[in-house]
Amino acid sequence: MLIEKYRKFTSQIFEKKDADELKSFSQKLRLNAAQMINNAGSGHIGGACSSIDLYLMLWLCANISPDKVGFEQRDRIIASHGHSAAAIYSVLGNLGYFDIKDAIDNFRGKGSIYEGLASIKVPGVEWCNGVLGQGLSQGCGSAMAAKLKGLDYHVFVVLGDGEQAKGQLQEAREFANKYKLNRLTAIVDYNKKQSSGDLSDVMPQNIKEKYAASGWKTLEIDGHDYVEIYKALREAYFEKERPTLILANTVMGKGFCEIEGNYEYHGKMLDEAIIKREEEKLSGCKGPVIEFEKFRPVKKTSLSIKTGKPREYSKDQMVDNRSAFGNALLDIAKENKGEANYIAAVDCDLTASTKLTDFAQEFSDNFVECGIAEHNAATVAAAMSREGIVTFQAGFAVFVIDEVYSQIRIGDMHNSKVKLICTHCGLDVGEDGKTHQCTDYISLLSNLKEMKIIIPADPNQTDRAIRYAAAQDTAAAVIMGRSKMNAVTDENGKEFFAGGYSFEYGKGDLLRQGGDAAIITYGNMVPYALKASEILKKSGLSISVLNISFPLKLDEQKIKEAADTGVIVIYEDHNQNTGLGNIIASYLMEKGLHCRFIKMGVKKIGYSASPEYNYKKQNLDTQSLVDVLTKACSK
Amino acid sequence: MLIEKYRKFTSQIFEKKDADELKSFSQKLRLNAAQMINNAGSGHIGGACSSIDLYLMLWLCANISPDKVGFEQRDRIIASHGHSAAAIYSVLGNLGYFDIKDAIDNFRGKGSIYEGLASIKVPGVEWCNGVLGQGLSQGCGSAMAAKLKGLDYHVFVVLGDGEQAKGQLQEAREFANKYKLNRLTAIVDYNKKQSSGDLSDVMPQNIKEKYAASGWKTLEIDGHDYVEIYKALREAYFEKERPTLILANTVMGKGFCEIEGNYEYHGKMLDEAIIKREEEKLSGCKGPVIEFEKFRPVKKTSLSIKTGKPREYSKDQMVDNRSAFGNALLDIAKENKGEANYIAAVDCDLTASTKLTDFAQEFSDNFVECGIAEHNAATVAAAMSREGIVTFQAGFAVFVIDEVYSQIRIGDMHNSKVKLICTHCGLDVGEDGKTHQCTDYISLLSNLKEMKIIIPADPNQTDRAIRYAAAQDTAAAVIMGRSKMNAVTDENGKEFFAGGYSFEYGKGDLLRQGGDAAIITYGNMVPYALKASEILKKSGLSISVLNISFPLKLDEQKIKEAADTGVIVIYEDHNQNTGLGNIIASYLMEKGLHCRFIKMGVKKIGYSASPEYNYKKQNLDTQSLVDVLTKACSK
Repeated sequence: MLIEKYRKFTSQIFEKKDADELKSFSQKLRLNAAQMINNAGSGHIGGACSSIDLYLMLWLCANISPDKVGFEQRDRIIASHGHSAAAIYSVLGNLGYFDIKDAIDNFRGKGSIYEGLASIKVPGVEWCNGVLGQGLSQGCGSAMAAKLKGLDYHVFVVLGDGEQAKGQLQEAREFANKYKLNRLTAIVDYNKKQSSGDLSDVMPQNIKEKYAASGWKTLEIDGHDYVEIYKALREAYFEKERPTLILANTVMGKGFCEIEGNYEYHGKMLDEAIIKREEEKLSGCKGPVIEFEKFRPVKKTSLSIKTGKPREYSKDQMVDNRSAFGNALLDIAKENKGEANYIAAVDCDLTASTKLTDFAQEFSDNFVECGIAEHNAATVAAAMSREGIVTFQAGFAVFVIDEVYSQIRIGDMHNSKVKLICTHCGLDVGEDGKTHQCTDYISLLSNLKEMKIIIPADPNQTDRAIRYAAAQDTAAAVIMGRSKMNAVTDENGKEFFAGGYSFEYGKGDLLRQGGDAAIITYGNMVPYALKASEILKKSGLSISVLNISFPLKLDEQKIKEAADTGVIVIYEDHNQNTGLGNIIASYLMEKGLHCRFIKMGVKKIGYSASPEYNYKKQNLDTQSLVDVLTKACSK
Repeated sequence: MLIEKYRKFTSQIFEKKDADELKSFSQKLRLNAAQMINNAGSGHIGGACSSIDLYLMLWLCANISPDKVGFEQRDRIIASHGHSAAAIYSVLGNLGYFDIKDAIDNFRGKGSIYEGLASIKVPGVEWCNGVLGQGLSQGCGSAMAAKLKGLDYHVFVVLGDGEQAKGQLQEAREFANKYKLNRLTAIVDYNKKQSSGDLSDVMPQNIKEKYAASGWKTLEIDGHDYVEIYKALREAYFEKERPTLILANTVMGKGFCEIEGNYEYHGKMLDEAIIKREEEKLSGCKGPVIEFEKFRPVKKTSLSIKTGKPREYSKDQMVDNRSAFGNALLDIAKENKGEANYIAAVDCDLTASTKLTDFAQEFSDNFVECGIAEHNAATVAAAMSREGIVTFQAGFAVFVIDEVYSQIRIGDMHNSKVKLICTHCGLDVGEDGKTHQCTDYISLLSNLKEMKIIIPADPNQTDRAIRYAAAQDTAAAVIMGRSKMNAVTDENGKEFFAGGYSFEYGKGDLLRQGGDAAIITYGNMVPYALKASEILKKSGLSISVLNISFPLKLDEQKIKEAADTGVIVIYEDHNQNTGLGNIIASYLMEKGLHCRFIKMGVKKIGYSASPEYNYKKQNLDTQSLVDVLTKACSK
């Protein structure tokens, strides 16, 4: 059988006789999956066997082949239930993406690419999904990117049925409906079993009704009947209006009669005797004839973004950093017009607060409004950024960091390049009070492997941070408070972060130089620190003020100089047990830079009140800083 | 009008004439809300005015009054969209829960209880909700607790319409359906506007269909018509089978014609002139005659839990800490039988992996299976614990910490008392690989105000930790790996955490005493550290091994002694940039306890492979520890 003829669903003649030809091949696929799991000593055979026919038809017929991995125009096949990894590897290996023997021998093993939950290191795999519920949002992001870029690839997302209980899927369904993502198809492996028992016992759900309630086209098929699978996929492929759900009725453990329908084989191995039996039965079985070229990885070309001319904010203006962000983003989008399809802003119903209003008007096609559905938004943004869209996601920090930490974490594992604009940080959020006080932004984000945290001190530095972040091929989080402020100035009263200032990731800014002690601070605390330094000058104390905008890339030389004064006071609008203080303390201890060391930060949940009131209540106001320094210097 | 007659919906005679009597009162409520906001200079008038009639009828008619705040049998009224605070305070103040003038004068002000987002400090308010999407899960938890306790209070949850886009609501809908929570009613303030515009533009939704698809009874009413509101609430109150949705059509800004239907007044103030006009119109207006007693706060009696006799695990057994948890929980449940309704376990389809199988069988009524819907589960658990159920929630750490950090954070603000059982932590998770490697558990949980983090070193300490946590009136997280291990022993080969060992929160365990250096470690790294200490003994080095199971309550004396050796090596299966190392470094710097300081922890994302393979790859194996100590001691 020559399979190439079904590619891109161009033919409708996939008939029972074609399906019959795949019969023993499909059993070989199952056997190879079982061999992987038994060799490894662990894995998930039940779901692998229920999903495997879906995967086979997808990778046979979609516009993707070993020679096209990495091509921008390929169809995307995303597996949301990554624990079906053995099935995925079995199909891909047998279709020529790699040597199947390699996967059988090294599954779940010492550093091999064939990880226990399907891994992007394996050619053909688009996402590593072990944390359930994110796959459909990944699909939404990819489909959205196709729209922005004017490409017509199709996005298929295969999902487990147990994971249909995840709320993020509901968010994704509505997003896909809103943006009429007709090039998106969800295929649910409906085997009606999950890890702890029957779906109807664990969490009863009306899967089809949920998709229909969100405006999706729905189809229901036998997920082990190749003709039905092909027809449904083809119908979805050519659907013009809506995203499509294919609810595929399957059997857990299908293909091994001893375990069919037994939920305990979600994560249990087959008896070796069964494997032996199938090996004998299938010896000599070959797959379909497929004329693929060899795997040829494609190097992605990276986009070069023009960041435009920085804006200057005068010390006499009161501006919030959010506005500086909004202005800079608008500049960048204008600068890259024509290519502006490659710049997008993702919002969750906070357009005005995060200063996206102008961008949303001028670049309405590139403004992606997700509604109050932050989990989907975070994953959509990550997926768009991976598809080459320069993606800014803006929101209150509690919504774009705390609420969706898990989504950011998974994005980080995929080298997400999202520019996260985190507004209303710290006690500076003011009257909205405790639920909106994000005082853990450094703490959370510092767990990630690639995230650049940038906490600008004023609108000028914010402007430069945004332009810098836009041009980076990595993720970045730009952290800002809520309040308006004057531009920070140098000792001569000139704007520090304007004029000749050059933004350099990892560079600390010595705003004031002094020999008696050093305040290390950042963000919206900088003006308070400068004030304290001025006050102390009058009492004859000369205090350094060091702005550390990059907590994850410390300016070692400047910190050493701070330690050399003999006294370091960390001064931050962040939980003082989990913020910059601990990072610097650790650095000082490791380097043996011993000095007096005092932390001033947020000690408890704040009030629904002004920043000034809150700072005073937590001994974070200027006078408290003055008092602490006076005492420290007198010893 | 004497309102008491409608209490508990005992009468059906609420008619148009009754409603008419409330007319000017309802306008007074709106005026008071507007006064609060204008006095404060900020707030949310639009949603306050659309919700206020719903709140009025609820607080008039439900089984709750100022004298019953805190009574166990009261009906619960939960506001999920906490930004409607001004409406809530206006209704409560005018119904005698407190002096309305106090709220008008101090809303969003300097440390007053009248926070910008409705606060539990205010009598009558059940939850502080500013982070949207959690209210329905809170209601589910309260309703579930009523079932377990055999109480028949009703739970009303008022929600915004924009927040219906949140996926967590979908999870809650299915949970309520599964457990047939007929005493739960959701009332959606359907004003069709949200912060950034029309609902239909921001994120189109079929709200009623979504609830219906999850098996809810649905009603639709005019949310400003008191007769319709009353009838719908009454019907929901007496519904016997299913939870009920009341979709209440309302008008944003209702009552002030100048702003009605204008989404910009989501968070914008009224003109002072409008307030003046209404003040004149309403001067002298009085509310309904209500014969409530004065507010009488109720002191909750705390449950006393019998924790039973600790189990002993011998050094010759290989046991995983998860099993020690499962066994201890079963013991505790049996010990408190008869009162066992007060102990519950919450699961998300991981029953076998988290060793809840036996509990689920023996105490099936107390086993709450949420399915793969962790956000709802986390909030349900928090709510159950606040209702006096001793609630254990178990799961892989990436699912019960990372995935739901925001839900834990909000729970923490409400003194949640959940016992979080976090399994499969660290690289010890093994072959499931990177998405399942939780190496940030200390980092995340240390941002909370009340969470006790406990990381036991072996099954014996786990057993005691579980019994300890069960008896605490606070939240606790017990952290464990996946692997089986032998019981940790003292220098004489006797089980360290059994026999005469007494578990004390904050007590460090000096497992080995030595003068040349100290390893500070915890959890599943302890056996590796002990091994290293033994090896080094043979080379003549005497190394302390200090087990710190409580990173948030350091054993200061023992850490000082460790520093006195001159060398501290932190050794942890946790991101080394965000773990115990930084906490101890900060402590040492603040106290001026200077010594050589070396951190050994997780430096990068691990492989899908055994813990041993991963430790070796990251220089965390015993030999690497030996090498580091040898070098450190030779200097």
